[in-house]
Amino acid sequence: MSTGKFIVIEGMEGAGKSSAITVIENILIEQGIDYVNTREPGGTPLAEALRDMVKSVDHQEKLTVETELLLMYASRSQLLANKILPTLAAGKWVIGDRHDLSSRAYQGGGRGFDEATMNTIREITLKGFCPDITIYLDIDPHIGLSRAQARGDLDRIELEKMDFFMRVHDKYRELAAQDTTIITVDAAQPMLKVHQDIATTVSEFIAKATVD
Amino acid sequence: MSTGKFIVIEGMEGAGKSSAITVIENILIEQGIDYVNTREPGGTPLAEALRDMVKSVDHQEKLTVETELLLMYASRSQLLANKILPTLAAGKWVIGDRHDLSSRAYQGGGRGFDEATMNTIREITLKGFCPDITIYLDIDPHIGLSRAQARGDLDRIELEKMDFFMRVHDKYRELAAQDTTIITVDAAQPMLKVHQDIATTVSEFIAKATVD
Repeated sequence: MSTGKFIVIEGMEGAGKSSAITVIENILIEQGIDYVNTREPGGTPLAEALRDMVKSVDHQEKLTVETELLLMYASRSQLLANKILPTLAAGKWVIGDRHDLSSRAYQGGGRGFDEATMNTIREITLKGFCPDITIYLDIDPHIGLSRAQARGDLDRIELEKMDFFMRVHDKYRELAAQDTTIITVDAAQPMLKVHQDIATTVSEFIAKATVD
Repeated sequence: MSTGKFIVIEGMEGAGKSSAITVIENILIEQGIDYVNTREPGGTPLAEALRDMVKSVDHQEKLTVETELLLMYASRSQLLANKILPTLAAGKWVIGDRHDLSSRAYQGGGRGFDEATMNTIREITLKGFCPDITIYLDIDPHIGLSRAQARGDLDRIELEKMDFFMRVHDKYRELAAQDTTIITVDAAQPMLKVHQDIATTVSEFIAKATVD
């Protein structure tokens, strides 16, 4: 039995990650590929408790940026060991709603942790593990955030100022340009065109993956 | 107003940290020095929640050694920013029941994280901050653990095998030998002699600290 593949959806608030995941799910179902969904931070009981800590707006105490970074990777370590790796080993695919690229964009770009720091903590946690393909939904933060705001409640990180999101966006684009396993989709296009781009990308990936 | 001093008590299970803290408290009270107690992991609401995660034996999922490391430092970051630094800045002293030396011994020595990894995560979290004096209560792990076992319930880390504790002990001794701010007290001596050694060390430290 071959191991499963790890497909990750990335992008900022309001980029359309949820409906993109539905598009991918439908293709996997059509192709008869068994899959499991994950989300980050979170995805295991312990990681979900860490997610709540990181996202809650009503702490009795200020969360330091260092704690935010460390908890993101602690959550990722739990998810990787207890869900992603066993699922892939069992031959199922995993669709990830965010993964390590989010930390590199939000904590690296947004919070300003430097490349060396990010790489060390990534290496501790991931030991070189990375997604087989990442679909990055690129959206101008002004557009994305206004979509997200229209949806309602914003969490602690979503309440950051616009210059934070501009830094996150810049880092996403910089990292996407460096890595051929990251496919950028223009999420400002009409929704049907966005979904078509995602479907094409995923179908091509499946065709190659199942030939290998 | 001068800033306070940070005195840390370190040592393995059953070394006698609790009664050592009482000895130090009595001396500070005699000298009219205001102090605050901390414990690690923990010491703030969020850090205490992380402590529970790290120490609980009945998780629904296995805690990875990477998560253990990351949560220890997340807890430390919260304690440092929200309790230790503000307390010292207000001119009060802090008595710490464990601090960074514990992570270096347990996660570095015990779990086997290498020096470079430990130093990077320490630098992210502490940015060079360190105790003014650390009193390390040195005890053979066999003796210490049998004392701790006689006391009752052991937590997740205290349930490790003896070779884990031997590695922790070796690392404690190695680090104590390298750092002149770490004072080793032989905790296998009769209790009154241990307390006398601690009292002498702390009194000398106070005499020097209040002259400076």
